[in-house]
Amino acid sequence: MSRIAPLSGFPEWLPEQRLIELKVIDRLRHTFELYGFSPLETRAVEPLDQLLRKGETSKEVYLLRRLQAAADPKADEASDDALGLHFDLTVPFARYVLENAGKLQFPFRRYQIQKAWRGERPQEGRYREFLQADIDVVDRDTLAFHHEVEMPLIVGDALSSLPIPRVQIQVNNRKLCQGFYRGLGIEDTDAALMAVDRLDRVGPSGVTDLLVSTAGATQAQAKACLALAEIATEDASFVDAVRSLGVKDPLLDEGLEELARVMEAGQAHRPGLLLADLKIARGLDYYTGTVYETRMRGFESAGSVCSGGRYDNLASSGTDRYPGVGISVGVSRLLGVLFGAGALSASRSVPTCVLVAVASEDDRAGSDRVAADLRRRGIPTEVSPTAAKYGKQIRYAERRGIPYVWFPSPDGPGEVKDIRSGDQAPADPGSWTPPADDLTVQITGT
Amino acid sequence: MSRIAPLSGFPEWLPEQRLIELKVIDRLRHTFELYGFSPLETRAVEPLDQLLRKGETSKEVYLLRRLQAAADPKADEASDDALGLHFDLTVPFARYVLENAGKLQFPFRRYQIQKAWRGERPQEGRYREFLQADIDVVDRDTLAFHHEVEMPLIVGDALSSLPIPRVQIQVNNRKLCQGFYRGLGIEDTDAALMAVDRLDRVGPSGVTDLLVSTAGATQAQAKACLALAEIATEDASFVDAVRSLGVKDPLLDEGLEELARVMEAGQAHRPGLLLADLKIARGLDYYTGTVYETRMRGFESAGSVCSGGRYDNLASSGTDRYPGVGISVGVSRLLGVLFGAGALSASRSVPTCVLVAVASEDDRAGSDRVAADLRRRGIPTEVSPTAAKYGKQIRYAERRGIPYVWFPSPDGPGEVKDIRSGDQAPADPGSWTPPADDLTVQITGT
Repeated sequence: MSRIAPLSGFPEWLPEQRLIELKVIDRLRHTFELYGFSPLETRAVEPLDQLLRKGETSKEVYLLRRLQAAADPKADEASDDALGLHFDLTVPFARYVLENAGKLQFPFRRYQIQKAWRGERPQEGRYREFLQADIDVVDRDTLAFHHEVEMPLIVGDALSSLPIPRVQIQVNNRKLCQGFYRGLGIEDTDAALMAVDRLDRVGPSGVTDLLVSTAGATQAQAKACLALAEIATEDASFVDAVRSLGVKDPLLDEGLEELARVMEAGQAHRPGLLLADLKIARGLDYYTGTVYETRMRGFESAGSVCSGGRYDNLASSGTDRYPGVGISVGVSRLLGVLFGAGALSASRSVPTCVLVAVASEDDRAGSDRVAADLRRRGIPTEVSPTAAKYGKQIRYAERRGIPYVWFPSPDGPGEVKDIRSGDQAPADPGSWTPPADDLTVQITGT
Repeated sequence: MSRIAPLSGFPEWLPEQRLIELKVIDRLRHTFELYGFSPLETRAVEPLDQLLRKGETSKEVYLLRRLQAAADPKADEASDDALGLHFDLTVPFARYVLENAGKLQFPFRRYQIQKAWRGERPQEGRYREFLQADIDVVDRDTLAFHHEVEMPLIVGDALSSLPIPRVQIQVNNRKLCQGFYRGLGIEDTDAALMAVDRLDRVGPSGVTDLLVSTAGATQAQAKACLALAEIATEDASFVDAVRSLGVKDPLLDEGLEELARVMEAGQAHRPGLLLADLKIARGLDYYTGTVYETRMRGFESAGSVCSGGRYDNLASSGTDRYPGVGISVGVSRLLGVLFGAGALSASRSVPTCVLVAVASEDDRAGSDRVAADLRRRGIPTEVSPTAAKYGKQIRYAERRGIPYVWFPSPDGPGEVKDIRSGDQAPADPGSWTPPADDLTVQITGT
């Protein structure tokens, strides 16, 4: 057997880490369902022409081919060769909505927690296989603005339910920026947006150069664009800061009003959750209104762990349009960062709460009966795999963090030992119940 | 946009079906954790040489290649081209155990609920992408036999917790068959096993021909092999039936004793769950002891929905051996069959229990507060997306099966209406609680 080694870019967790990941997924799902989002899962593959609609990621697609396709004269080469693994959950969702529009109720609220793949060269914090948790609301023809207000509050609730550092969601609005640029007299507002999007990477002077060279801006216009990008407030006071720059445009007004509504709702819901941050642009070109990014306190350098925005043109078919708004939580990125920092731990490495000891192999059936009684009442239980000396069986539990060992007795109910404290007492497997904190694995942040 | 059509072999469920699938996954997971199995997820890809170790499935592997690999001179072609999607969860698990042996505790009990892919030509009941739910126990060097006894009882509990038709697990033991063939004087017992494995497809005369041509059996030996394959009992009485065939072999004795232990435990645990069925062989060649297949009542023609067995040689590295036993539930196959027959339904198509009505857009904030109160107490709630006439908002709920509509009042707590009965009564969003059956989506079989 060869090549038994990790594959760069394809993270795999240890069982204890997978327990943590599942708890994280459970809590995200719980919050999404509390807000009425329906679960959805799409196939892992899409026709290549679907995947290439977002030009800039085309080089990252993994294509599939069947190993023996050439040897199979009946194989439909064309259909197989034109399939690739999806690189996000938005493109498959848009395709799913078009394909199933007649069977869905609109507005359609869905969550989707699933792997995606990108054939990138692996580097720090970039995975080739990663888990995302997306929520989107799409409607037919028009989508009410209030959905853009609700999105970051839902994600705020979801992330606040996790034992992770506090997050802040940075919010901006494309209309605000594009209206501002237009009001300044810049014609290619898309190019201006893409230039400002590079602020973190190339700095103010780099952005100035880009604005001049790609968006045809003057030095004065570039300076005003940078002044806008510097504005960041935790409330709606950004409106006055923008007004003071003296630019006037109806699209700017619309963007200011929309972003103010998001910020006011955020302050009422969870103060400090949102930051109106006018440098946030999101590189991808399909957003048309509110956009979101998210930083985790103490891990800002990891980049955004949760991003999204309003889109009008992602899914359309003939005369039908399906505008939507969505946010995607980068679960693998979030966990990778926190696991790397040792910032998340589980109370034990297995689900098991009780290990039932086995006095001798002849007594295994009795131990099995004790375990069955405990499981019937929802207590995760294992029976010792060997009838070794009790000291060895206790060490089996200790190494896995199993808190209780049960010693059956042929004459009575037996005894249960808390192996952390050493306390041991008679107990009945038909009624004994562990404390709630011991029943299931507890996840804590540090 | 082109090719908006289902892809043959890649099933996708509607939201209501995905709700059902998630409930099924939740219950399987709950049972597996009750028995102390740790969750695990492996990457979707394996090096091709790992995937090809099981020769007969090699033609079904999907290989990956990066779309732009040729255009990237720095790309490591070799490593990318040698990756394929896994076609089951056993091969990746064996690789994971070898790779992480130093960090795992043995015996290692894990469950894994994950997609797998096979590039087969699509046909009835065969998927190219499908969900499996596997449990395995592996140990280092030796694995105690009692794990082979426990496996089908766990799966029996798991499947019995689902609203599906009754299942019966067919159990056999390779030692029993191979000992019997050896005792008969057949030298190539593997070939005999593979011949008998084809009984359902080619019938008794076909198996006789195969036994003669591939295993070198005489007509009399072939007749005895078929007599063995005809034995099937719901208890341990198969032992006498085999003995009456007059064949003697120590491996046969061992197999009989092992299978009898499985059947006795099964009868004590859940009468009728197990069938000792001596024609069950499992085509794959790595099983060495107990083997399992599972039929669902009324859907026998769908084949086995849950299969597995004991293996000794799947994972080994130098002098280290990791024998194991595992069973895999074919979740996609199971659900595909039941969905196709209309045999599973959900009480509603969304998680939402309550729709909070909106009297006018100016009152949306008040409706949002009612929803927040309900969600705080774990009640899945949506706010109406529009302030249309109440009749229209009620129809929004009706179309999705949402049982309750809440009408906020500016002067008091508001009223809640059960739209199925029409009953409406004043209620406080801080204390009102729906019946448990309405709180979450209920899944029922027919």
